[in-house]
Amino acid sequence: MEEPGGPVVLLTDFGTADVYVGVMKGVIAGIAPRAQVIDLSHEIAPQDVRGAALALLFSHTFFPAGAIFCCVVDPGVGTSREPIAVEVEAEGGLHAFVCPDNGLLTPLLAHCRRAVTLDEGRYHLPDVSSTFHGRDLFAPVSAHLAAGVSLEELGSARDPDGLIRLDWPQPHRNERGWKASIIHIDRFGNLITNLPAVVLNQEKGLSDNWCDGWQVLLGGHTVRGISPTFASAPIGSAVAYVGSSGFLELALRQGNAMREWQAGVDDDVVIERT
Amino acid sequence: MEEPGGPVVLLTDFGTADVYVGVMKGVIAGIAPRAQVIDLSHEIAPQDVRGAALALLFSHTFFPAGAIFCCVVDPGVGTSREPIAVEVEAEGGLHAFVCPDNGLLTPLLAHCRRAVTLDEGRYHLPDVSSTFHGRDLFAPVSAHLAAGVSLEELGSARDPDGLIRLDWPQPHRNERGWKASIIHIDRFGNLITNLPAVVLNQEKGLSDNWCDGWQVLLGGHTVRGISPTFASAPIGSAVAYVGSSGFLELALRQGNAMREWQAGVDDDVVIERT
Amino acid sequence: MEEPGGPVVLLTDFGTADVYVGVMKGVIAGIAPRAQVIDLSHEIAPQDVRGAALALLFSHTFFPAGAIFCCVVDPGVGTSREPIAVEVEAEGGLHAFVCPDNGLLTPLLAHCRRAVTLDEGRYHLPDVSSTFHGRDLFAPVSAHLAAGVSLEELGSARDPDGLIRLDWPQPHRNERGWKASIIHIDRFGNLITNLPAVVLNQEKGLSDNWCDGWQVLLGGHTVRGISPTFASAPIGSAVAYVGSSGFLELALRQGNAMREWQAGVDDDVVIERT
Repeated sequence: MEEPGGPVVLLTDFGTADVYVGVMKGVIAGIAPRAQVIDLSHEIAPQDVRGAALALLFSHTFFPAGAIFCCVVDPGVGTSREPIAVEVEAEGGLHAFVCPDNGLLTPLLAHCRRAVTLDEGRYHLPDVSSTFHGRDLFAPVSAHLAAGVSLEELGSARDPDGLIRLDWPQPHRNERGWKASIIHIDRFGNLITNLPAVVLNQEKGLSDNWCDGWQVLLGGHTVRGISPTFASAPIGSAVAYVGSSGFLELALRQGNAMREWQAGVDDDVVIERT
Repeated sequence: MEEPGGPVVLLTDFGTADVYVGVMKGVIAGIAPRAQVIDLSHEIAPQDVRGAALALLFSHTFFPAGAIFCCVVDPGVGTSREPIAVEVEAEGGLHAFVCPDNGLLTPLLAHCRRAVTLDEGRYHLPDVSSTFHGRDLFAPVSAHLAAGVSLEELGSARDPDGLIRLDWPQPHRNERGWKASIIHIDRFGNLITNLPAVVLNQEKGLSDNWCDGWQVLLGGHTVRGISPTFASAPIGSAVAYVGSSGFLELALRQGNAMREWQAGVDDDVVIERT
Repeated sequence: MEEPGGPVVLLTDFGTADVYVGVMKGVIAGIAPRAQVIDLSHEIAPQDVRGAALALLFSHTFFPAGAIFCCVVDPGVGTSREPIAVEVEAEGGLHAFVCPDNGLLTPLLAHCRRAVTLDEGRYHLPDVSSTFHGRDLFAPVSAHLAAGVSLEELGSARDPDGLIRLDWPQPHRNERGWKASIIHIDRFGNLITNLPAVVLNQEKGLSDNWCDGWQVLLGGHTVRGISPTFASAPIGSAVAYVGSSGFLELALRQGNAMREWQAGVDDDVVIERT
C-alpha cells in the first residue's frame, strides 16, 4: 500500500483501563499497518449513544477528508441491530463512519451520501464473538477501508432513510427568545446547550451587541447578556457565550458551573430578551 | 530503516496523568522514529503483576506478527530482578516481550521460544536510573528491536525454564462441574472467570444446548444456564456466557454485576449441573 | 513532504474524556498527515500552568531533536495573552515549544534561542474561536512546524527576555543543609522536591556515602539518610533518594507517602546533617 487512507478515528465507551481499545488497535495494525490511528474519546459514558453522537457532531468537521470514524458505543451488541458503514459529506471532503445502526449518527445523517450493511464476512475477523464487535467487526472493517477497500465492497447497499435516528432535543423558538436545554457538560463543568451559534447569529440585535438586552435562565440562576467570548466576563462570574462547540454555552470563569449550579444534562435553559 | 518492525505495544501501571508514558514514547521516537506505538493499557493497578499478565493473555493474539510488547509493571525496579526479552510463538507469528523477570509473562511461557537477559548496555540509555527502567532500559530495548536489532544481540541467552512464574489460579474439575474463580473485573463490572471456553466446549451437553442443565453460583447468587451470548438474556437479568476474553464471564445485562453482587477478584465461582 | 519533522508532543489540561485532544489531532492530521503525535499528558490539573512547566522540565530532554511541544494550559485564552513559539537548546538538539505566553516555559527559558509571537494568521485555522486556541491556533501552528515551516515564518520575532516567567520555588542553602519544598506528587504518592540531583552531588560527604550523616524532615516525619536508590530501603519504610526526575524525592517503599504523611505540593522539606 503506497498511499494510506485517511486516519482511523476511534470513539468508544470502553475506557482505557481495560485492554479493549488496545486490542482494536492491534487488529487495525495487522490489516493496515501504515494507517494512522487517532483516539477521539474512549470515555463516552457506558452505552450513552447520544453522548457519542454529540462527540461526533462537535468534532468530525475538524478531521481531514478521508477520515474513517470507527464508533463503538453498542448496547445492542449480539442482538439483531445491524453493523453499518456510512459516507457523510463534510466541509472539505467525505468522511466514513463504521458503527452499529443505533442512532449514533443521528446529527450527521442529513449529509449522508450512502450506507451499507456490513454483511461481507471476509472483512471481519474469522471468528466474530457476540460480545466484542469493536474488535471482531468494526476495527477490521475500518482498517480495510484505510487500506483501500471501497464502501460498496463492505456489504449490501441500504437506504439511508431507513437508518435509526435518536429523538434529538431541539430548541424551541417563542416570543421572548428560545427554550433550549443542556446537551453536554465538559470536563471543566461548562454547560453546552443545543442552541446553535448560527441560529443565535440570525437574531437581530444579538449579533451586533451581544452583551445587552438578553438574559439566560437556568434553574434559579440568571446570566445577564450573551458574550462574544468566554474571557470577556470577570473571573468567578457567570457567562453565556458561543463556545468552541458552535453552540451556546454557560460557564463560570475559572469555576465549575455544573457543580455550583447543580446542573445536569437535559436541564432547561431559557434565552430571552430582558 | 526502510521496513519498520511490528508495532511497539506499551503496557504499564504508570497511568497517564504523569509524564512517564510520554517520556517512554519520546525515547522510542529517538531510536526508532518510524515505529508505530500502541497503548495496550497504562491503568494496570499499581504493581499488580498478575493484572498485567492477564492483560497480555487476553490480548496478545490480536496483534500482528512482529509485535514488540514493552511491559513495565515492576515493583522490583532497582533490585536484583533481571530485565529480560522473550520470544513467544503466537497464532500467526512471533511476538517479543520486553519486561522485568517477575512473573508478568506466566500465562505465555508455555509458548516461549527463547529468552535473553538484557545485559547489553549499549541498547540502554547512557545513564540508567534505579527507579525508571521503563524509560532507561525497557523502552530503548523495545525501540532497538523495532529498528531491527535481533533478540540475541540484546544480551545473554538464558533458559526459559528458569524464568519466574506466578502462582496461577486454576479451575478445579469435580463431579458436578468446576470450582473456578474470578480473575478480572472490567469497566462495566463484568466478572471474568478463569474457566476457559475451550474447556467448557469439551463438555458433553453443554456445547449443544448451553442454556439448560447448568447453573453458576457466586456468593449467594445463582445464574441459571450458560448462554452462548451475552445479549441472549433479558435486560437487567444475570447471564453466564463465554466472553470476548475466551473465558466464562458473568454479567448483568445493562447493569454492573460487581456492584450488585459485591463481587471481587479471587471470589469463588461454582459451575455445576442442576 | 518526504522527511517529516520531529514528533508533535501534546501537553494539555483537557483530559481525555472530552473530544478536545482528539480534535487537535484531527487538525494536525489535516496539515501534517505523516507527523507522529505523542501524548505527553492531558491530565495537568485544570489551568495549572506550573504543573505543565514541571511536566516539560522532567521530560523534554528525553525527546529527540526536532520535537515540537504543543502545550495548551491556557487560563487566559481569549484575553490579550500572546500565543508564542520558542526554540530551546536541549541536550542533543533543538526543541520547539508552541504555547501561550503565560509562564509555561519558565524552567526552560534559560536555554531559549529565539521566540516569535504567533501573528501570522495563515498558519491558523480560518476561524479562530475565542475559547479553543488549542484547536484553532496551537495545533495548526505545531503541524505547520512539523511539515517544514520555519519558526521565523510563524510570526514576529520577540525578545525572549520579555517572556512571562512564573515565580519558581528555589531551595535555600543554609548552614546545616537546604530548605526545599515539594513541587510535584506523582500517581504513586511519591513526593518530588525542588532540590536538584546536581546540587546534592556537589555536597562533600554526600556523593560518597549517601546513607549516613543526613536526614530529611517533612512535617513531623524524619527520613534518615539519603539513598542512592529507591529500592535500597526495606518495604514499607520511608526513603529519600534521587528520583528519575533528577530531583530529590521522598517515598514509602510500596506505600503512598502523600496519603500516609498528609503531604501536599509546596510543603517545606528540610535536608540537613545529623
